[in-house]
Amino acid sequence: MHRSAIVLLSGGLDSATCLAIARVASYTPIHTLAFDYGQRHRSELILAKKLSEKFGARHRVVSIDLRQFGGSALTDDIDVPKDQLADSSATQQRDATPPVTYVPARNLIFLGYALAWAEVIDCNDVFLGVNALDFSGYPDCRPEFIASFQQTARLGTRRRNFTVHAPLIDMTKAQIIQRGNQLGVDYSLTQSCYDPVERSGVVLACGHCDSCLLRKRGFVEAGVVDPTRYV
Amino acid sequence: MHRSAIVLLSGGLDSATCLAIARVASYTPIHTLAFDYGQRHRSELILAKKLSEKFGARHRVVSIDLRQFGGSALTDDIDVPKDQLADSSATQQRDATPPVTYVPARNLIFLGYALAWAEVIDCNDVFLGVNALDFSGYPDCRPEFIASFQQTARLGTRRRNFTVHAPLIDMTKAQIIQRGNQLGVDYSLTQSCYDPVERSGVVLACGHCDSCLLRKRGFVEAGVVDPTRYV
Repeated sequence: MHRSAIVLLSGGLDSATCLAIARVASYTPIHTLAFDYGQRHRSELILAKKLSEKFGARHRVVSIDLRQFGGSALTDDIDVPKDQLADSSATQQRDATPPVTYVPARNLIFLGYALAWAEVIDCNDVFLGVNALDFSGYPDCRPEFIASFQQTARLGTRRRNFTVHAPLIDMTKAQIIQRGNQLGVDYSLTQSCYDPVERSGVVLACGHCDSCLLRKRGFVEAGVVDPTRYV
Repeated sequence: MHRSAIVLLSGGLDSATCLAIARVASYTPIHTLAFDYGQRHRSELILAKKLSEKFGARHRVVSIDLRQFGGSALTDDIDVPKDQLADSSATQQRDATPPVTYVPARNLIFLGYALAWAEVIDCNDVFLGVNALDFSGYPDCRPEFIASFQQTARLGTRRRNFTVHAPLIDMTKAQIIQRGNQLGVDYSLTQSCYDPVERSGVVLACGHCDSCLLRKRGFVEAGVVDPTRYV
């Protein structure tokens, strides 16, 4: 019997790897869910679509407007910090202040939509590409949060076996890239930059935001060639 | 020091009473949050605005499209059941099948947005008008779900003291109406019907859906005159 899965796919490196992991684990069909939430880096939505096609997944984009509440550099006119990669050991503390790129309750809302869709299509498995480095100060990327969400979802729906899979949660960026590389992920179809620029129709990563710095370092540590086009 | 609150306000009888309870508990300012989610009974949104003005609350409507997933008589072209009020003792069972008017993961998504807003305005208290009768088969109206959501929210944000208040949860519809009546709620400004009709600009309740049947019985049992205009 086939088991379907829903993969939350942002178009970033992590969620693309997550999609490859769900695919190799034989979930079928795979549904991918992306969100147009007024993010600065909307070009990732085009990549999410391309990645879905590549992996034979059924893709859906949900428009939600998180800008109406504000409070994040990713959706507001707040400057994205540059060249100041936070020390991950310090920011992984429970009480660390999240960085300005934190979007309030984003993963909870994203998982809520995934759960609604799962309920309708009778699916019990949702994949989310959060990982150890991501939870540098993002409270909604922590394992306790994921486990608690899963419990809340089981209580609030008919999905008694609903499971949130976070296969990357204990992996470093380098390990994620190595795994994805083994699984044939084309990382030129992914984008991590919080503040990309478009020049002559080509999207270039800034190379200096938190996310670019983590990505660059990840490729170096993984010993994999970084296909990213930087400014 | 003043404590602010966010009240999830649908324009129905329960959430209107919930707003009055938050007001009398001296929360200030009170923010009310309504959702335009493609529901059939959109006239309730107008009432939510009127109620907010009456209670001096700051009102906001968030548009979210739950129709894209489907799966509910409240958002799809599925007939709303009439004249068949479920036996609440039977449907309150943990494994009862929710009625077709159940909208998948609705309260989780609504609470997720409330949490996002709470995070931005530094608010710790959200009021939700779920009650004992409402959880006739709606898994996301149960106390275990509410408690679990609260825990998930605390883990996933900076809101360590985030609290979901569900003051109606153990009350019958009659008790809710009596309490609201004491607090001066004008129930003519509320709407419960799942399938209202508009005639000459006046919105009339069908009088036969689950929600109308519960409301009618509630007013009778409360000994309060029902101001609802039925077809």
